[in-house]
Amino acid sequence: MKIGIVDTTFARVDMARHAIEEIQKLVPRAQILRITVPGFKNTPWAARKLIVEQECDGVLVLGWIGKTLTDKLTYAVASMGLVLLQIEYGKPIIDVTVHEDESEDPKELYNIAIDRARKHAVNLVKLIRGEDLSKYAGKGLRQGRPDVGPILEDLGDKFIEW
Amino acid sequence: MKIGIVDTTFARVDMARHAIEEIQKLVPRAQILRITVPGFKNTPWAARKLIVEQECDGVLVLGWIGKTLTDKLTYAVASMGLVLLQIEYGKPIIDVTVHEDESEDPKELYNIAIDRARKHAVNLVKLIRGEDLSKYAGKGLRQGRPDVGPILEDLGDKFIEW
Amino acid sequence: MKIGIVDTTFARVDMARHAIEEIQKLVPRAQILRITVPGFKNTPWAARKLIVEQECDGVLVLGWIGKTLTDKLTYAVASMGLVLLQIEYGKPIIDVTVHEDESEDPKELYNIAIDRARKHAVNLVKLIRGEDLSKYAGKGLRQGRPDVGPILEDLGDKFIEW
Amino acid sequence: MKIGIVDTTFARVDMARHAIEEIQKLVPRAQILRITVPGFKNTPWAARKLIVEQECDGVLVLGWIGKTLTDKLTYAVASMGLVLLQIEYGKPIIDVTVHEDESEDPKELYNIAIDRARKHAVNLVKLIRGEDLSKYAGKGLRQGRPDVGPILEDLGDKFIEW
Amino acid sequence: MKIGIVDTTFARVDMARHAIEEIQKLVPRAQILRITVPGFKNTPWAARKLIVEQECDGVLVLGWIGKTLTDKLTYAVASMGLVLLQIEYGKPIIDVTVHEDESEDPKELYNIAIDRARKHAVNLVKLIRGEDLSKYAGKGLRQGRPDVGPILEDLGDKFIEW
Repeated sequence: MKIGIVDTTFARVDMARHAIEEIQKLVPRAQILRITVPGFKNTPWAARKLIVEQECDGVLVLGWIGKTLTDKLTYAVASMGLVLLQIEYGKPIIDVTVHEDESEDPKELYNIAIDRARKHAVNLVKLIRGEDLSKYAGKGLRQGRPDVGPILEDLGDKFIEW
Repeated sequence: MKIGIVDTTFARVDMARHAIEEIQKLVPRAQILRITVPGFKNTPWAARKLIVEQECDGVLVLGWIGKTLTDKLTYAVASMGLVLLQIEYGKPIIDVTVHEDESEDPKELYNIAIDRARKHAVNLVKLIRGEDLSKYAGKGLRQGRPDVGPILEDLGDKFIEW
Repeated sequence: MKIGIVDTTFARVDMARHAIEEIQKLVPRAQILRITVPGFKNTPWAARKLIVEQECDGVLVLGWIGKTLTDKLTYAVASMGLVLLQIEYGKPIIDVTVHEDESEDPKELYNIAIDRARKHAVNLVKLIRGEDLSKYAGKGLRQGRPDVGPILEDLGDKFIEW
Repeated sequence: MKIGIVDTTFARVDMARHAIEEIQKLVPRAQILRITVPGFKNTPWAARKLIVEQECDGVLVLGWIGKTLTDKLTYAVASMGLVLLQIEYGKPIIDVTVHEDESEDPKELYNIAIDRARKHAVNLVKLIRGEDLSKYAGKGLRQGRPDVGPILEDLGDKFIEW
Repeated sequence: MKIGIVDTTFARVDMARHAIEEIQKLVPRAQILRITVPGFKNTPWAARKLIVEQECDGVLVLGWIGKTLTDKLTYAVASMGLVLLQIEYGKPIIDVTVHEDESEDPKELYNIAIDRARKHAVNLVKLIRGEDLSKYAGKGLRQGRPDVGPILEDLGDKFIEW
């Protein structure tokens, strides 16, 4: 298995280190190729390179997004690029983006970043392997935060449909 | 008939179970293929897989969208991917998205999800079959909520154009 | 002439009926093909079908858009799909969209819908015929509302450029 | 030189008349082809026609955009189409859009429209001719308004970098 | 090495001069090709020209974005074009955009522009050379502003994960 990782010098946490650790735990012989770019907007270029030139089976993109409207639009534009790559080449790309408006507390942002990077690294391996995730469908899983669970669970499974 | 279903572990309701029930009622011999991905942004990848590799005749995408601007942009980006797939491959894709800002009450969200998934499962079958839906055109049908009906009905059909 | 019409069961007015009436008045022998889909997001799929499989010369898309940000994004995404189809296939597509935030009064929305559908049906025929519309350029024509006219007219044509 | 012009019946000023005047002053033997469409959203279709079927060397698109969020999204969608055409065919397209929220005063809107159309008509000719505009780079040129000039000029060229 | 530069007459700072200085310092024999266009929306056309017709190895796009919603949408649309070019041709494009809402003070905007242009010129050379930037990954580097550094540094590297 050949996995691509794209990350940025803009980010404030080295998420790739954690993602790589997870991948190596799961797939010790995985080949990991990494490209670091300045910011999120260059990640489609790097992801394409990893898929087309390096023939990676999937790519994990680790981004960090500021708080302004400009940052949000940048996020949308680059995400669209990552979706287009998936449509064109058929390889899964998961983007792990940490948004600075997710928390005022840098410690919390740090933890969100690590947790999200680790969990999505595992998710990417599963998508590449074609693992059946349907047993988790609708389970309210979260990356970067604790899982919220399915709504039915909230209601003690006693909830009757209207 | 070969129907693809894409859903997520992010969602808080297992909408696929309900959608599959509807499809099986309508088309007992339908072949149903399902891919569960982590979140809405990976649904174009999965939908493409079901159309290109599995040759599905149509795909139902079941998503769950948070409340923030980031979530809304994610929704737009992935939806654009699903539209692009329809343009490229000519197969119908209906996305059933439940937005957390549709209700503060989890019970209501649950019911919206189930109702929308069921009704759109039926809609997808109709689109694949090429059924003529024009008798319902302009009728104010809704998925996830009761139908609102046509405006003329509101006015007791007595409304005269200005 | 072969004209495609795409409309939705979501809409609260049967705009197609009015559009078809206009087309038949103008081009009695026009062949009209209609596909009704659940909502605006499936209109690119249907428009593509009418252009690629049915070889329509142009398509009128009749949509109805809710008031929320989600609805607005849905509008943008599907509209983008309709623009892409025009770029890919070179056939004109006019979308007639009625937005629920255009009026609080259902009667007014009804009239907007009818007027816009009728006028754009005529516009589509003109685009397909390649009619020269330049004599109306800059004239402030509106669909769904009365024309606002050119600015110069407001000023009694007496306005002198600064 | 073959120049395409696309304008709309929605606009409240006949910008094309002014643009054509400028083009004819600069390139008396230019061939000018014009398509008028109902609204901004149909301009990509017309621009494509002028580039692909009429082999224009560049296109000037003259649009008029309302004040609502719907209008802004429409602007973004059609602009995206014009960017895609430039990427696909390599011909320059300049869009001259006048936004109704640029001024409350119709006279001012009128003047913005004329000035922008005239200046961008000249710009398009320069792009088609491959003229080197680098001597104006960073000069704060504006269309529709007086030039704002470079920041250094504001500061009497005495500004020292931090 | 062949580097393309695209800038605008709309910008209020001649960023290209500074970017070129940096490139020449790093790669004295680099061939630099520059196209100046009126505004940001024409930069995808120019970048494509530099990549396709001039065979540049990468392009630096220098833009200046106003404060209104229209300007922000224009930014998003043209940025999307630049991402699409990177996906289609596989050459890196870095856009250096200065947004007028980044500061009320023109001197500060001036300094943001120069710093961002210089740093991203260096970044582009590194991407073209295929330099490994992973040692800076997650380091909170900024262009236009001082680096913010990684979160762990803020906390004196004493921070323990939750």
